[in-house]
Amino acid sequence: MRSTAQQTVVPRRSREEEYPGGTYVRITDDQRDAPRGTAIFAEHVLYGYPHIGRILRLQSGLREQFGDNPFQVEEKVDGYNVRIARIGDAVLAFTRGGFVCPFTTDRLADFIDLRLFQDRPELVVCAEVAGPEQPYVAGHPPHILEDVCLQVFDFMRLDHPGFLPGEEQAQLLQRYALPAVEHYGRHDAGRWEEVRDLLWRLHLEGREGVVFKEEAPGAHRTKYVTGASCVDDIRATADNMLQLPSEYFTGRILRLALFMEDQGVERLGAVREALGRALVDGLLEAIERFRRERRVFHTHRCRFRHREAAERMLRHLKRADGHIQVVERGITREGDFHVLEFDKTYSEMTGLLGHLLRGGMVYD
Amino acid sequence: MRSTAQQTVVPRRSREEEYPGGTYVRITDDQRDAPRGTAIFAEHVLYGYPHIGRILRLQSGLREQFGDNPFQVEEKVDGYNVRIARIGDAVLAFTRGGFVCPFTTDRLADFIDLRLFQDRPELVVCAEVAGPEQPYVAGHPPHILEDVCLQVFDFMRLDHPGFLPGEEQAQLLQRYALPAVEHYGRHDAGRWEEVRDLLWRLHLEGREGVVFKEEAPGAHRTKYVTGASCVDDIRATADNMLQLPSEYFTGRILRLALFMEDQGVERLGAVREALGRALVDGLLEAIERFRRERRVFHTHRCRFRHREAAERMLRHLKRADGHIQVVERGITREGDFHVLEFDKTYSEMTGLLGHLLRGGMVYD
Repeated sequence: MRSTAQQTVVPRRSREEEYPGGTYVRITDDQRDAPRGTAIFAEHVLYGYPHIGRILRLQSGLREQFGDNPFQVEEKVDGYNVRIARIGDAVLAFTRGGFVCPFTTDRLADFIDLRLFQDRPELVVCAEVAGPEQPYVAGHPPHILEDVCLQVFDFMRLDHPGFLPGEEQAQLLQRYALPAVEHYGRHDAGRWEEVRDLLWRLHLEGREGVVFKEEAPGAHRTKYVTGASCVDDIRATADNMLQLPSEYFTGRILRLALFMEDQGVERLGAVREALGRALVDGLLEAIERFRRERRVFHTHRCRFRHREAAERMLRHLKRADGHIQVVERGITREGDFHVLEFDKTYSEMTGLLGHLLRGGMVYD
Repeated sequence: MRSTAQQTVVPRRSREEEYPGGTYVRITDDQRDAPRGTAIFAEHVLYGYPHIGRILRLQSGLREQFGDNPFQVEEKVDGYNVRIARIGDAVLAFTRGGFVCPFTTDRLADFIDLRLFQDRPELVVCAEVAGPEQPYVAGHPPHILEDVCLQVFDFMRLDHPGFLPGEEQAQLLQRYALPAVEHYGRHDAGRWEEVRDLLWRLHLEGREGVVFKEEAPGAHRTKYVTGASCVDDIRATADNMLQLPSEYFTGRILRLALFMEDQGVERLGAVREALGRALVDGLLEAIERFRRERRVFHTHRCRFRHREAAERMLRHLKRADGHIQVVERGITREGDFHVLEFDKTYSEMTGLLGHLLRGGMVYD
C-alpha cells in the first residue's frame, strides 16, 4: 500500500528504485505536478529540480522576462546538478534524473557541513558538482584543476516543489559556511550593459554563464550562457557526435552566434576558428583514438572516500549501460582516496568509424 | 484500369500526379523494386535514380568497394539530379523525387540536342543541373557564374532500372555532342594516390567530388566528396539550420574530418576556420536578414524561355509549400528570357529568431 506521501503524486511514467533504506519511486518523465527526477519515498517526496528556460538575447530577454523587477545574478557552473536530502537517517545526493549518486553521496562530508540536516531535516540542498574528476559529463570549468567542487545554488524543502527565498538561502549559506556559486548581485533590465560586461568577463574566463533569479513573490528565473561555454561543450563532446542528438550541436552554434550579436561580432572574430577547431579536432581525436585502440571512449576518474561506494558507482553506471558502454579500469588507493577509473565507450562512433575506416559505404 | 506498365510496380506509397499528357503515378518512398522518384505512366515506367553509397576513406574505400577491378572516375557536380525522357510526344525533365520540373523542361533545348529522343525514344538521360540561377538548392559550383549548366552523367532506358554501359554512354555523348560531367579516366585501388591527388585539386577548386563507376558487368558505384564541398554546403544552408535535419550538418563535419585524414591534416589546417566561419556567418546573416526584413529567406532567380513555364514552376513550388514558404517576387523580361524571382522563407528560423530577439525563452 502506498503511503500518504506516495499518493500525492500520481506515478505514471515512473520506476521503482532501490536505495540503502529500501525502495522509492522515481519519476522518469515530466508530469503535470512533478518534474522528471522527482523521488517518492514512504514518508516524503523529493521534488525534481525544475527546468529553467534560456534566453539567447540579453537586453530584450531581461526586459521581456523581468520587466522592471530586480533580479539576482548567480553563476551557472558547468557540472551536474544534485539535490541533497536527508532520507531516514542517511543524507543522500540525487542526480537530476532522480537516481542516488553513490559518488556524490560518498563525498558530501568533504564539501558541506552535514549538521545542517540534523538541524533542518526537511531541507533539500541544490548544488552543482563540477571538476575534471567526476563520473558524468566530459567538460568542466577550466579553473577547477583536480577532483570536484560542490557549489550550492538553491534550497528546497521535502514535500514542496518550490525554492526557499533568497534571504533565507543567504542565511543558511552563511550559518553553515556552505560553498556557494558566485553571486553577482542585484541587477535590473534597465542596467543590462552591466550584465553584458559581466558575461564578457565570464566568457574570457571560460565560465558557463549565469542564472537570473527574480525576487519573491514572482521568483521567475531564466539562464544565459557565454560563447565560450558553447565552444567548450562542443569540444568536449565532438567525439560522441553520433550519439548525442544533433540538436546538441546546432543549438550551441545558434547560441554562439547570438552571444556574438550581444557582445559585438567584431571582438568575437576569433571564435569562428575556435568553433571549427572544436568540431574538427574533437573528431580527429576520435579517429586517432579508434586507430590506436579500436574504440572511441572517454576515461573518467573519480575519488571516493569508501571503496564500497566506488563499487556501487560502477554497478550504477553499468546498469544504465546502453549506447554508452562502461568499462572498468580499476580502483586504486591514492592517499586518503579510492580512485575509480572507467571508460565510457561511444559505441555509435566506434561502430561507424570501424565501418568507414575499413572502407565501408554509408547511404545518406 | 491500370496498364501493363503500371502493373509492373506495386504502387504502395505513391501519389497520382498531373503532367501535360495526363496523369502518372509517382513513387514517394523507396520500394523493393522501384526507388523513390519512379514515375509510372500508361505506357512506360521511368525508374527512379538509385541511391549511391558514399565512402569517407579513399584508400580502404576503393579497395573494399572495387578490389582489383578498374573503375571510371567522373565529377560529381553540386546541383540537382534530373532524368530526361520522352513521354508521348513531349520530352520532360523529372526531379529526383519524380516530379516534372517546369524549369528544367523549359530549358532542355538550350543544353541538349533533342533529336536524341527522336532517334532513341526509349532513352533516359540522367544529368545534373547546377548554377546560381535555379529553383532548388542554395549552393552551386563556384566556376558557374550565371544561369545553369546541364551535365550528363548516365543513361537509362524506359522500363529498365539499370544504366547503359560506359562505352554506349561515351558513344551517345559524342554522337549528340551532349554536355557531360568531367571524366577523369580509368583508375584502380592500387593507384589510389592518383585519385587522392585529383581530389585535392577538386577541393582547391571548390568542386563537390567524384563518382566511381566500376565497369560492367559488376557496375558497382560509390561516391566521395571534397572537404570544400562540406564547408560550402554548410555555408549555403546555415541560415536554414533549424529546418534541415541536424544530421545534415554533423554528417558533413564528419566527412570533412575524414577528408583531412585522407589528404593530410596539416595542409588542411585552415579548413577549421573556414568551417567555423561557414556556421557562424551563415547564422549571423540570417539574424541580420531577420532584423532588416522580419523573415529569413533565400531569393532564387531562374531564366525561362517561356513565361507559361515560369508560372507553372511557381505553382509547382507553391504546391510543395510546407515549412518552406514560397513568395513570388515577379517575372520580368530580360533579353530572350523570362526571369522568375521568388523567395524561399525559412519559417522555423524566422519563427525562432522572432521569439528569441523579442526576448523569449527556450527550454532545451
